[in-house]
Amino acid sequence: MKRYVLIVAAGSGMRFSIEETKQFALIHGKPVLMHAFDAFSKANPDFHFVLVLSRTMIEQWKDLCKQHQFTTEHLIVEGGDSRLQSVKSGLNHIPEKMLVAIHDGVRPLVSKGVIEKGFKLAAITGSAIPAIRIDESVREIKGKTSISLNRQSLRLIQTPQFFHSSLIKKAYSGLTRTDFTDDASVYEEAGHKVTLFEGDRQNIKITWPEQLKQIEHLLK
Amino acid sequence: MKRYVLIVAAGSGMRFSIEETKQFALIHGKPVLMHAFDAFSKANPDFHFVLVLSRTMIEQWKDLCKQHQFTTEHLIVEGGDSRLQSVKSGLNHIPEKMLVAIHDGVRPLVSKGVIEKGFKLAAITGSAIPAIRIDESVREIKGKTSISLNRQSLRLIQTPQFFHSSLIKKAYSGLTRTDFTDDASVYEEAGHKVTLFEGDRQNIKITWPEQLKQIEHLLK
Repeated sequence: MKRYVLIVAAGSGMRFSIEETKQFALIHGKPVLMHAFDAFSKANPDFHFVLVLSRTMIEQWKDLCKQHQFTTEHLIVEGGDSRLQSVKSGLNHIPEKMLVAIHDGVRPLVSKGVIEKGFKLAAITGSAIPAIRIDESVREIKGKTSISLNRQSLRLIQTPQFFHSSLIKKAYSGLTRTDFTDDASVYEEAGHKVTLFEGDRQNIKITWPEQLKQIEHLLK
Repeated sequence: MKRYVLIVAAGSGMRFSIEETKQFALIHGKPVLMHAFDAFSKANPDFHFVLVLSRTMIEQWKDLCKQHQFTTEHLIVEGGDSRLQSVKSGLNHIPEKMLVAIHDGVRPLVSKGVIEKGFKLAAITGSAIPAIRIDESVREIKGKTSISLNRQSLRLIQTPQFFHSSLIKKAYSGLTRTDFTDDASVYEEAGHKVTLFEGDRQNIKITWPEQLKQIEHLLK
């Protein structure tokens, strides 16, 4: 089975300035999004890439590719108004009966280990979702009060999330809910069992500008 | 009401080497724990400090204080085998009818804003617990499977946690459970309502060695 990587980078990054969307922010002089591509290319040079961008970003991205002489082949797809719609748009360009990793473009630190393990596991079980333990106490807001949860049983969910393409494509095509925050939830909603595996806590999702400097030393 | 700061640093830090417990690891040449003290002293020079250490660390800490000419006054208390026992030991040295902030010594980045807001709020409501939103999807492990949780209603809980000293002392003295991971849960178990307020996502808890370098630039 061919292996596809669907990188979703259509988000507006509301905590970043409009001039600098977080996926285009520079780390060691190179856009975050290119670091994400490179992480996959280093793990395996034969991946097929599909990149989802919002319409307003496409020209900027093409300019950046020229400027940085970024030659990794990828298909650019225009995204929708939400992450779920963007993933759905991207999946339309992934063939059936393949394996696909769906990845957030703002996670430039994904490791070779996670990529290899994820594809391997998804080939067997249909899905592979990286998850890490939570080091802090967690509470759930219930109206005006809150209750303590047992953090031992909780996991933070990361990307890339790996799937049999036919299964995740079908799950997305039947999706009616709009409140899911990741692909595993869509897959599960379609009646499939989600397989978790140990993620990597360095695989940070860039959400806040101050994280850029924090992770600079991790990306060498 | 006098304001006390109870800093808990008796943990062995199992993910760090034995030679370098994480509270003594150096950031900009100074132990993490001293940075935590300094954060409070900068917010208000009149705090009364109680520091809980494990027996084996006390001499090392005293040496470090001499070496770094660290002169902030503080009472050293020997801790117990668990965080809950250590807090309980420390609380024995905090008078009744005061306000106390209970803080993890491995959070050197606590801000003046959080410290001021916490004491103010706890004076009114009895407790003040800093909490932040979760940027990632969350799942709960249920036996061999897992379910997706709504992250909108979840909060990561930080320290310092602020209390009326009489209330938290009494809560700890009646505690029989051993599975709580923070003081808010102990307070709640005693029948009190926990008050949350907006924490600061830079107030990182050092759990992994690689975080030391990550936060170095945040501590100037």
